[in-house]
Amino acid sequence: MTQELVSTKAVITPQEMLDHWQGHRKLTRRVIEAFPEKDLFNFSVAGMRPFSELALEMISMGMPGIDGILTGKWSTDFSFYENGKGPQTKAELLALWDELTEKLNRLWPQIPIERFHEVDLAFGRWEGTIQFTLFYFVDNEIHHRGQGYVYLRALGIEPPPFWDRA
Amino acid sequence: MTQELVSTKAVITPQEMLDHWQGHRKLTRRVIEAFPEKDLFNFSVAGMRPFSELALEMISMGMPGIDGILTGKWSTDFSFYENGKGPQTKAELLALWDELTEKLNRLWPQIPIERFHEVDLAFGRWEGTIQFTLFYFVDNEIHHRGQGYVYLRALGIEPPPFWDRA
Repeated sequence: MTQELVSTKAVITPQEMLDHWQGHRKLTRRVIEAFPEKDLFNFSVAGMRPFSELALEMISMGMPGIDGILTGKWSTDFSFYENGKGPQTKAELLALWDELTEKLNRLWPQIPIERFHEVDLAFGRWEGTIQFTLFYFVDNEIHHRGQGYVYLRALGIEPPPFWDRA
Repeated sequence: MTQELVSTKAVITPQEMLDHWQGHRKLTRRVIEAFPEKDLFNFSVAGMRPFSELALEMISMGMPGIDGILTGKWSTDFSFYENGKGPQTKAELLALWDELTEKLNRLWPQIPIERFHEVDLAFGRWEGTIQFTLFYFVDNEIHHRGQGYVYLRALGIEPPPFWDRA
């Protein structure tokens, strides 16, 4: 069944789910932008990871994750960002962010609707339906972005409004 | 169309969506429990609201919100918690939390599948499809709970694991 034939008699359609994810990613991108360059890579509260590392964790899930969702092949090669190979500047981080934005838009429409309920072993480790794994990616982003809001407040910076996903 | 007839050829079925929401609510409940009583109502980071107020915001969306989702009637009577009428102790907050848990389980199965794509004015103010409003409730909870994780870390308390929704 192609996505075009999917009824809107659903909690959320594939197109809405993509819009939902990308809407959250637009907001997270604004949170990255809101950090002063040095604080993005160095500042945190209570000994937690700086926001650059939290954002990189989101990318490290989504970038190979969308391939896994589509194909069932889960890459655990994180060399694109591990061992100091990750972005060293805000501009580099945003470029990687935008690369994933484009990748999601390109691959998402190819996911067969049945795929969302297939059980798979995400990254060879975490068993669950694809919808479960997908919401894990999105929710993990919301969770860590919420922490970024506290970092920004602690820096005296007004975070972008949570309700704005445009 | 009743929920029983809904195909699993969906991104997420109504039952999965309820489980998703209640799973997050189980985790948030553990975060409430993790706070020492006084810190739940008084502690925060960077001048933000204490976690009791964030948790009460979640309840103030869900408690009248599930009625609005089901019936289209949106109560804006928040007197059950405003003006100092809200929970004054952790036990009272958890009791209100559990009341909503039961209410969601009771009303959710009555939501017709078509309802998720009807456009409504949530609380008489926010226009969107019901699925949009629903995800707003859940995502707002994840967002503020992430902030609660920072509060707990700042208090030297290990938060409950994010991945555990059981």
